[in-house]
Amino acid sequence: MDALLTELRAALGKDAVLTDPDVVASYSRDMMPLAPNGKPLAVVLPTDVAGVQATVRACAEAKVPIVPRGAGSGLSGAANAIDGCVVLVMTKFDRVVEIDPGNRLAVVQPGVVNLDFRTAVEEHGLFYPPDPSSYDWCTIGGNLSTNAGGLCCVKYGVTTDSVLGLEVVLADGSVLRTGRRTVKGVAGYDLTKLFIGSEGTLGIITEATVALRPLPQAPGTLVAGFDSTEQAGDAVARVVREGLVPSLMEIMDASSIKAAESYLNTDLGAGSDCQALLLCQSDAGGEAARSELAALEQICLDCGAGMAYATDDVAEGKMLLQARRVVLTALEQYGVWLTDDVSVPRTRIAELIAGCERISEEVGLRIAVVGHAGDGNMHPTIVYAPDSADEFARARKAFDAILDLGLALGGTVTGEHGVGKIKRDWLEREAGPVAMRVHRQLKQALDPENLFNPGSMFSLD
Amino acid sequence: MDALLTELRAALGKDAVLTDPDVVASYSRDMMPLAPNGKPLAVVLPTDVAGVQATVRACAEAKVPIVPRGAGSGLSGAANAIDGCVVLVMTKFDRVVEIDPGNRLAVVQPGVVNLDFRTAVEEHGLFYPPDPSSYDWCTIGGNLSTNAGGLCCVKYGVTTDSVLGLEVVLADGSVLRTGRRTVKGVAGYDLTKLFIGSEGTLGIITEATVALRPLPQAPGTLVAGFDSTEQAGDAVARVVREGLVPSLMEIMDASSIKAAESYLNTDLGAGSDCQALLLCQSDAGGEAARSELAALEQICLDCGAGMAYATDDVAEGKMLLQARRVVLTALEQYGVWLTDDVSVPRTRIAELIAGCERISEEVGLRIAVVGHAGDGNMHPTIVYAPDSADEFARARKAFDAILDLGLALGGTVTGEHGVGKIKRDWLEREAGPVAMRVHRQLKQALDPENLFNPGSMFSLD
Repeated sequence: MDALLTELRAALGKDAVLTDPDVVASYSRDMMPLAPNGKPLAVVLPTDVAGVQATVRACAEAKVPIVPRGAGSGLSGAANAIDGCVVLVMTKFDRVVEIDPGNRLAVVQPGVVNLDFRTAVEEHGLFYPPDPSSYDWCTIGGNLSTNAGGLCCVKYGVTTDSVLGLEVVLADGSVLRTGRRTVKGVAGYDLTKLFIGSEGTLGIITEATVALRPLPQAPGTLVAGFDSTEQAGDAVARVVREGLVPSLMEIMDASSIKAAESYLNTDLGAGSDCQALLLCQSDAGGEAARSELAALEQICLDCGAGMAYATDDVAEGKMLLQARRVVLTALEQYGVWLTDDVSVPRTRIAELIAGCERISEEVGLRIAVVGHAGDGNMHPTIVYAPDSADEFARARKAFDAILDLGLALGGTVTGEHGVGKIKRDWLEREAGPVAMRVHRQLKQALDPENLFNPGSMFSLD
Repeated sequence: MDALLTELRAALGKDAVLTDPDVVASYSRDMMPLAPNGKPLAVVLPTDVAGVQATVRACAEAKVPIVPRGAGSGLSGAANAIDGCVVLVMTKFDRVVEIDPGNRLAVVQPGVVNLDFRTAVEEHGLFYPPDPSSYDWCTIGGNLSTNAGGLCCVKYGVTTDSVLGLEVVLADGSVLRTGRRTVKGVAGYDLTKLFIGSEGTLGIITEATVALRPLPQAPGTLVAGFDSTEQAGDAVARVVREGLVPSLMEIMDASSIKAAESYLNTDLGAGSDCQALLLCQSDAGGEAARSELAALEQICLDCGAGMAYATDDVAEGKMLLQARRVVLTALEQYGVWLTDDVSVPRTRIAELIAGCERISEEVGLRIAVVGHAGDGNMHPTIVYAPDSADEFARARKAFDAILDLGLALGGTVTGEHGVGKIKRDWLEREAGPVAMRVHRQLKQALDPENLFNPGSMFSLD
C-alpha cells in the first residue's frame, strides 16, 4: 500500500494525503453511535476534480475501497470508514462557483457548508430550501448524497427537488455531467436523481447546479398544546385534508416537552397535562400568513388544543421554535441519545407516538419523539447511559422496534437520514428481493469493482 | 411467430391480442410526423399485471421486442412501432385505484386519461398538477414515461415531482415496487425517478402512487402585449429576478398572435405592431392574487408593454388563454405543423425567438413560437405544405437548426416531449460520451436483451 500512498502524494501533494493515526481516526466515523467503523489506510483531501480522478484511478488500480465523506454530520454510518480504505474528504471543495439571479440558479461545490450556501444566495434575495438540523455544519455534498430534508420539506421538498444537474467522478475516473441549467429538461434518463441519495456508492459528486426560490417572507408562528397525542395527530391530518401548506409543522411529544422545559428552565405554557405540542409557521407574508395561521389555529382548537398562541413577531417565533431545536441537546441531561428516523403517512403520526411510548416501557428507556409532522417524518430519540452495555443493547432493540412499527404503519425505515451501515437489513425488508436485485444491478453497472463505499446501503452478495 | 401469438392468446384471451392490419396500423405511431414507424407483429392490450408479465415473458422467450404505449399523443416517436414488435397498449389499465385525502395521495393505473384523473381528485378538493397540452386524451402512463410537463410547471413542477412510487414489470417479468406512500423517504436508490422519463426503455409501468396538492384558487389572468420580443424577454427575466411565481406564464410571438387572431377572427387587442404577448395567471387567491397580478403588470409596463390587461373573472381569463391554446390548430390554416421542444435559460427566451425568425427566413417557412415562458420551455412550430417533399425537408432542417440554437443558448434539446426516435443524435450531442455510456450501462443492467423499445432514446451500439 506504500506504493498507493506514494502515488497519491505525487498526484495531490503531500498535504492532501494524511496518515497520522489520530488525524485518520478523526475522519473515520459520522454521528451515528450504532454503526461500527474500521481503520482507514489514509485520508485524502483533494482540492479539484483532477485530484478526485487521480484518487479514484489509483485506488481502483490498487483495489483499495473509497469511502467518501463531507463534514461527518450523518446519522447512518454511511461515511464510516472500513478497514484499509481511503477516506475521500470533500470539504476542500468549498466554493460557491456561481449565483445567477436571472435564472434563479447556483452552481456549488460539495464541500460548502449548507448555512454558508444559504447565506450566499440570500444576499441575492434567493432561497435554498433544504435545511437539515445540522445546517450550520453539514455540507452540500453530504446533503446530496443522503437526499437530506429538514424542517422546510413540508412546503419546499427535499434536496433532490432543488437539483438541476451534477458533476460526478465515476469509478473509472471519468467525469460525468448530468442534468442541465434549465428549469425543465427530459433529455435521457434522470441520472441526477439516481446519484442523489445514493450515499456515495455510485460516484463522487464534485459539483451541483441547483434551482433556487425567491426568499420567502419572514414567518409567523403558531404553537398549540394538546392533552393527547391523538388530538395533535387529528390536527395534522385536518391540516392536510383542508389543503393548508404551512412552511413548517413540527411535533413534540410529552418527553420532548419535558426535556426542553427542563433544559431551558422555563414553562412552555402548555400546561402540565400537555401531551403534545404542534409548532407551525407560515411564510406566505402579510394578510395571507395571518389568515393561514388563523386557519391552523382554528383547526388546533377544533381538535381539542388546550392552548394555542400565534405571533407574527419573528424574534418571538424563533424563541418558540427554540423549544423544538434544543430537544436533542436537552436530552443529554439524561444520557446519550440515539435518534431514529422513520416516515409514516401523516394520518398515522399519533399511532407512531403511542407505539414509541409502548416501546419505551418495554425497554425501560426514555424515548422522546420529535418530528416533521407536516410530512410524517418522525425522529423518536432513545436515551441511554453512555457506560452501560445493557442500556446500549436495549437502545438498539428500541431502535429496531421503532422501524418495525414504522413499516407496520405503512411507512418507510428512513425519511431523511439514509440507510448507511445501520439499516441495510431494514432496506432489504422494506424494498424486497426484486428491488434489491435492481439495486445490485445498478451498482454493478456503474461500479463493477465495488470501489465506492462497499457494504454501505447494501452488500453485493 | 405463430407460436408467440398462440401463447399470448392463451394467456390474455383472444380479444387482447390484435393482428388485423388496419387495427395494428392504427396503433403503430404517435403524433410526431418526423419519426418513422415499422409494422408490428401484433397489438396486445393487457388488463392486469399478470397479463403484462405473461406478455413480457413470452416476448422475451421469442426474442420479439416490445414497444409500450398509451394513447399515442406523444411528439417524439417514442411509441412508434418497429418491424415485428409487439405493441403493448396500456389503455385498459384505466382505474383510479385509491384517493386518500388525509394523506393527499392517490394510486392510479397508467391507462387513465390525465383529465379523468384530474377530475376524479378534484372531487376531493385535490389537484394533480401535470397538465400537458394533450391532457384531455393523453394517459398517465405516457406522462410518466416522458416525464410530461405542461402549463403548470412554472409553479408546480413536472410529472416526476408528483410521483411517490411505481409498480413496474421488468424485462424478466418480475414485478418491481419502487418508492413509498410517505411524503419523504430515502430508503435506497431513487428507482422511481429513474423509470420516470425513461420512455418505455426500462420496464412497463403498471401503477403509480402520486402526491396531490390542495386545489388552488380560481386564477386571475393578465395579458400584456409588447412591440418587441426583447421587451417581453426582459419582462420574463424581471419576473424571475423579482421573486414572483405566477401559476402560468406563457409567451406567443408575432406569428402565433397572427395565426390565433386569424383563426379566432378577432383582434387580441395587442395592436398591429405587437411582437409578443405574455399571458400570466395567479392562483394565489383573493388579495394575494390581485397583488401578484399587479406586480406582474407593473413589470410588463416597466419593460415597455404597450398593452396590459388584468382580470379576476375566471371566464374572461379562460377566453384570454384561449388565444394561446388554439395556436397549433390555428396554424393548420397554413399547412401542417411540426412542433419542436427546446428549453433555454429564462434569460435567453428573446434570443431564441429572434433566432427562430432568422431560421424561418433561411428555410422559407412560417415558424410560430409559443412557449412556457416561466420555465423557458419553448415550442417553435414549423408550418409546411403536406404534399411537398421539399417543404418537409426544409421543415426538418429548421427543426434541427432550432435544437442547435437551443444548445448554443445553454439549453436542452427537449424540455418535455422526450427523445424518442427523433432526437437520438441530439441526445448524444447534449449528453456527451460519458453520459451515453452510463445510459447504455443502465439499460444493459435492467434490460440485457434489449426487449423494451429498442433503438428508442439511444441505440446500444
